[in-house]
Amino acid sequence: MWQAVRDFAAAVCHDDLMKQPVPCPSGFLDRTRDLLGPKGFTRDPDILRPRLTDWRGRYTGRAFGLATPASTCEVASLVRLCAQHNVSIVAQGGNTSMSGGATPDDTGASILLNLARMNAVRSIDTAGKTIVCEAGMVLQDLHDAAARHDLRFPLTLGGKGSATIGGLIATNAGGTQVLRHGTMRAQVLGLEAVMADGQVLDLLANLKKDNRGFDLKQLLIGSEGTLGIVTAARLRLLPAIGSRVVAWAGVACPAAAASLLELFTTEAGELLEGFEIIPDSSLEAVLEYLPAAKPPFRTISPWHVLIEFAASSQASRDLRDLVEHLAAMAMERGLASDAIIAQNETQAEALWTLRDNISPAERARGPAMQHDIAVPVERMAAFMEHAIPELERRFPGTRALAFGHLGDGNVHFHVQAPRGSEAGPWEMSDGSRISAAVHDLVVEWGGSISAEHGIGQMKLAELERLHDPVALGVMRAVKQALDPRGLLNPGKLIRANYEAGDTLAPAKTVA
Amino acid sequence: MWQAVRDFAAAVCHDDLMKQPVPCPSGFLDRTRDLLGPKGFTRDPDILRPRLTDWRGRYTGRAFGLATPASTCEVASLVRLCAQHNVSIVAQGGNTSMSGGATPDDTGASILLNLARMNAVRSIDTAGKTIVCEAGMVLQDLHDAAARHDLRFPLTLGGKGSATIGGLIATNAGGTQVLRHGTMRAQVLGLEAVMADGQVLDLLANLKKDNRGFDLKQLLIGSEGTLGIVTAARLRLLPAIGSRVVAWAGVACPAAAASLLELFTTEAGELLEGFEIIPDSSLEAVLEYLPAAKPPFRTISPWHVLIEFAASSQASRDLRDLVEHLAAMAMERGLASDAIIAQNETQAEALWTLRDNISPAERARGPAMQHDIAVPVERMAAFMEHAIPELERRFPGTRALAFGHLGDGNVHFHVQAPRGSEAGPWEMSDGSRISAAVHDLVVEWGGSISAEHGIGQMKLAELERLHDPVALGVMRAVKQALDPRGLLNPGKLIRANYEAGDTLAPAKTVA
Repeated sequence: MWQAVRDFAAAVCHDDLMKQPVPCPSGFLDRTRDLLGPKGFTRDPDILRPRLTDWRGRYTGRAFGLATPASTCEVASLVRLCAQHNVSIVAQGGNTSMSGGATPDDTGASILLNLARMNAVRSIDTAGKTIVCEAGMVLQDLHDAAARHDLRFPLTLGGKGSATIGGLIATNAGGTQVLRHGTMRAQVLGLEAVMADGQVLDLLANLKKDNRGFDLKQLLIGSEGTLGIVTAARLRLLPAIGSRVVAWAGVACPAAAASLLELFTTEAGELLEGFEIIPDSSLEAVLEYLPAAKPPFRTISPWHVLIEFAASSQASRDLRDLVEHLAAMAMERGLASDAIIAQNETQAEALWTLRDNISPAERARGPAMQHDIAVPVERMAAFMEHAIPELERRFPGTRALAFGHLGDGNVHFHVQAPRGSEAGPWEMSDGSRISAAVHDLVVEWGGSISAEHGIGQMKLAELERLHDPVALGVMRAVKQALDPRGLLNPGKLIRANYEAGDTLAPAKTVA
Repeated sequence: MWQAVRDFAAAVCHDDLMKQPVPCPSGFLDRTRDLLGPKGFTRDPDILRPRLTDWRGRYTGRAFGLATPASTCEVASLVRLCAQHNVSIVAQGGNTSMSGGATPDDTGASILLNLARMNAVRSIDTAGKTIVCEAGMVLQDLHDAAARHDLRFPLTLGGKGSATIGGLIATNAGGTQVLRHGTMRAQVLGLEAVMADGQVLDLLANLKKDNRGFDLKQLLIGSEGTLGIVTAARLRLLPAIGSRVVAWAGVACPAAAASLLELFTTEAGELLEGFEIIPDSSLEAVLEYLPAAKPPFRTISPWHVLIEFAASSQASRDLRDLVEHLAAMAMERGLASDAIIAQNETQAEALWTLRDNISPAERARGPAMQHDIAVPVERMAAFMEHAIPELERRFPGTRALAFGHLGDGNVHFHVQAPRGSEAGPWEMSDGSRISAAVHDLVVEWGGSISAEHGIGQMKLAELERLHDPVALGVMRAVKQALDPRGLLNPGKLIRANYEAGDTLAPAKTVA
């Protein structure tokens, strides 16, 4: 089903490119080709096509070229050229955005900017445990580079084979290790970015403490390419794991999972690397999807949790003992009905494989509205227990499910279409009403409609509908100050003042 | 000596207030009194005087009143009043700024804003381990509030008895636990602030993950009251320490201390809470200053390190064994010449007392230029070994010393005046040349002229002289966007475009 949608979208884009070539400001193409050379700029539709549709196949845009500069200097020159010709710029890394954040709009007045040629490690400091890499580096390559020095980069996620460092920074990506190590924001020690006027902001200094004014790198992290183009970053590394212990437990309900989490946090919080909740129906879906996979144990539980503890060398001497002790405590207190501790790396990986395949397995079951939501960590269990039946009640025939980062107060909340629904039409009608209902509920519970996937174009209107108007006003003022002509990733995250209604404009002066 | 300077400054201020009452925009005083009541606004010179000079006695300013609102709503109304009457606002917490960041300028066109009456705990969430407190709360009171729930707030510093949460956030304060837990930025989960137009920005949501656009709270943290007034914050808490082990070791040189740090980080990084370096001369100064204090051991070392390990309950079972093992490794490898492990809390506190009294002990020895600097962590030892003799060579008769947070790449670098120098005149002449030389050297080594003390008014000109012009331009654009009339803490951190030279203005459009 999804493949069909994607092919259809790609075809539309292809036709657009062929039949209605996007008009280009005079001189811009020549100057761009001169600047970047044949390796650095292309209008080849076969190359452009897959980059004009997001990987979930939901958005297709237009662009009159793909720029792949080879250096920060080239990026800066390109941005200046774009500013001169009023060409907007959509930065796109691995094209794995979950919210259409890297897909251009359909005006065709943009170029795509991809930094795949800027994927070098500039330096690695094994003593200080930092690495400086260019923004086009793929996450998996970063993991490998760190491992070669007996170090690790403590952030991972499903798209690690294609997601780039630049994209991960621009979206403040999360993943399964946020519980202990934080989101991308916590990994970024410094960055280099090209601002909207083509100036290079060099914030790469290798400093653990630096109070020289506003922390501009924080402003760029999570700004989704709307304030500047991240070209390189200094990232923190950690000592490679001395040992890790992965466990799986069956629990009665989200509240029991939350109690388990509290127990583990209190007893060994500094060693708790991940804590993921999984409904039994999702485990079933994975077992259907991966015929070779096996359930962790024979007893059946309505919910499951996947837990990882990790420690570096010395401190890890007793890690397995500790986890066994904690598992025994959990069983004694009736928090877990069954539990298994992986005996080796193969078993540990097998448990993670079950978790990592929930998304594709659920997708294979049919169309669904997917929501990346957060509520306060300690309210998440209650939220799940309230929201799941509530959504199913309000939208008969749907099936709601939630899985993921319970320890972060962040789950992926899916509402599956009634059997036999056709993806496109259902999404457009019931689907959007379902999403609005989920978001309303999240706001009512003091939560966020975007925990880790960002706003992109998918949630732009919902952000305007639901977010604090003062925060929206401040964001618009910052966007206006740093990209006054709105050339960086237009139509994503925040609309500039002139686009949005007057009522939402920031009150800069006082009546 | 310092007391004399302070008294002199206070007298000037008192005379100013008495003899040349600062003219006040018509109607502003009446409306402010109406708004805040007699408890909320005063012009009493005896109350104002101590707040018009910074605690180090270096800066004295003028103000025509002290506002102490009782609620966020009152702060917002006051800011609107100030905006209407073009009155600028200097927020001041415990008046413990190290860089004159909370002292008004001498135009007298400001009011002082103090949130001492806003010092309540709004809520504490023991399960989720967060606390929401008002900005006027004193750090020590926060420690006590957390301890009552068997929790702890993992940031501390010398001024904890008077520094307020609002000031700590506004300056992104550091302290002795940054090595493991980060600066104030890492503790702030959310905040509430009144912006320059009097709107209240509510970013208090209790969310571990939230990607709804730009992270505006990060922009306010460390902005020194120039972008908004922080009125409340949600802070993270940790489980109370199960056990801690404090040790003291003698080392031959900063490089040996750095090797020791690397060993400890590799072996037990997740348990290493603090790592401070102390020159023997500073230990001597403390022993002179605190006659009851005793040296940690009899052997004499040119340098010392103070190390703290901490762990929560279960994970701490073997903490002391671990530290003994590490100490033995350190001695075997020749990294430490002697070492002592505190046997109980009293001994542990005695070791920290030696560290905490370096600043006052050094101050008692006579005038000195003090620099709060950072360089890359792994270069700090080499920097110290280079910079100390270099400064002493260039400024004959001075004595240079550095102590502090070696694990953060941040030391307090003092250059003491030649014996018999008079504080004021020496600071004005040689002192400022010495500071410029220290800062130049820091920049040459890829460092920061402000690691944890901020810019305030003390380092404003040095920041303009030495910082990346692109970063300065972006900061000015942000300041201009969020405080277009420059009413928030004028003359601190960054000057607006119109004040600075054209050459430093941001190039918003491209030539």
